[in-house]
Amino acid sequence: MSNTNILYQHGTLALLVPGLLDGTLTMNELLQHGDTGIGTGEGLDGELIILNGTPYQLDGDGKINILNDEFTMPFANSHFADYAEMMEVEDINRDDLQSQIKEAANSTNTFFSIKITGTFKNITTRAVRKSSAPYDSLSKTAEKQNTFSKDSVTGTLISYHSPSLFDGAAVGGFHSHFLSDDRSFGGHILSFDSVTGSVSFQQFDTLEQHLPTANKEYMNHDFSKDNIIDDVHNAEG
Amino acid sequence: MSNTNILYQHGTLALLVPGLLDGTLTMNELLQHGDTGIGTGEGLDGELIILNGTPYQLDGDGKINILNDEFTMPFANSHFADYAEMMEVEDINRDDLQSQIKEAANSTNTFFSIKITGTFKNITTRAVRKSSAPYDSLSKTAEKQNTFSKDSVTGTLISYHSPSLFDGAAVGGFHSHFLSDDRSFGGHILSFDSVTGSVSFQQFDTLEQHLPTANKEYMNHDFSKDNIIDDVHNAEG
Repeated sequence: MSNTNILYQHGTLALLVPGLLDGTLTMNELLQHGDTGIGTGEGLDGELIILNGTPYQLDGDGKINILNDEFTMPFANSHFADYAEMMEVEDINRDDLQSQIKEAANSTNTFFSIKITGTFKNITTRAVRKSSAPYDSLSKTAEKQNTFSKDSVTGTLISYHSPSLFDGAAVGGFHSHFLSDDRSFGGHILSFDSVTGSVSFQQFDTLEQHLPTANKEYMNHDFSKDNIIDDVHNAEG
Repeated sequence: MSNTNILYQHGTLALLVPGLLDGTLTMNELLQHGDTGIGTGEGLDGELIILNGTPYQLDGDGKINILNDEFTMPFANSHFADYAEMMEVEDINRDDLQSQIKEAANSTNTFFSIKITGTFKNITTRAVRKSSAPYDSLSKTAEKQNTFSKDSVTGTLISYHSPSLFDGAAVGGFHSHFLSDDRSFGGHILSFDSVTGSVSFQQFDTLEQHLPTANKEYMNHDFSKDNIIDDVHNAEG
């Protein structure tokens, strides 16, 4: 039976910072840990979102692709969806939305997911263009990102909230990806002006943190010289 | 089937810092995640070590007790033992031992456990005396610790190594507890001069981090004001 109290994570955000971008988990493996999720492909190959067991990618050219089982990732989250309705919102801006969610959730000290279905105004997303080995650092690779905007689009946002204690392993605070209902627009959310729709909530009591121990570059890397927290927040925050 | 690649952790070291010392997991629950482990009881009630499925406690008076299933803990680790022999050591001091283990393991960036069976010279351990609610901070409670020393004692050391990225959630570096073969001496290891015996090693690719989400004090605590990393290393390092 699937355990809906568990958030699965492969890799850490910290490993992206020095450019450890090898794909170390297949999509087939990730989907064994959930039917809902977010992530990125080998070499920061786009922005991923998994909805109802289907993995979508916004690639660096702005195209939405459905991914196959063999697609590999350096970093991803997944969980089995069991969201409960939290609130309806109308024309709420992003800051107010996050405040209201934090207050309603009262779950700052644990991991949880937020799902929003609705219409977003003036939304901007980004997707990184895939790099090949040898990889640059995250800050260099992230320069090769494209941004995409829509005046108004209806779709689904999946967000994970991580406690600040786990900043570096995950993104402390919220990390949100989006996909439009017509599957033409998506990516890592940079900003939106407002949203009208339904907010639902799922709390976890367990983080299942899986590390790429078979990857020599990861195991041999000296993380003590990386500026992890700052670089993670510049690129992902 | 038990998965020997998983290190289970209940609670975080960070929650001990402000004195969130309620017992939030029973020994019965902990033993479902492993036959080997370390931890502390509610109110920092002594130093625990689990060997072959039997949980032992060195209490604040220096007495060794076998714990029952209902005993509760704010923080503990466990895993299913599947150690492989790493090396034999003879009269090696603690610093040289840690260096040799780090080199042989080459696992700085993941979680692993070390088990040492052998004879320790001039070993000093400590155990904290149980506090009652309302709890003081870790640094205050840790003042109520007793230390215990032996010129020479034969027994088992269980140690967990955590990557520095997880400092605060766990103790970055090694965290070691001890129990003598005659079950008369044990605790959290502060120091030893040398050890002669067998070192074995078990690497994990997954940390299963379980948080006490049913505990209101934990969920409502504002961790932003705690000096977590320093206090963890002063008390546990």
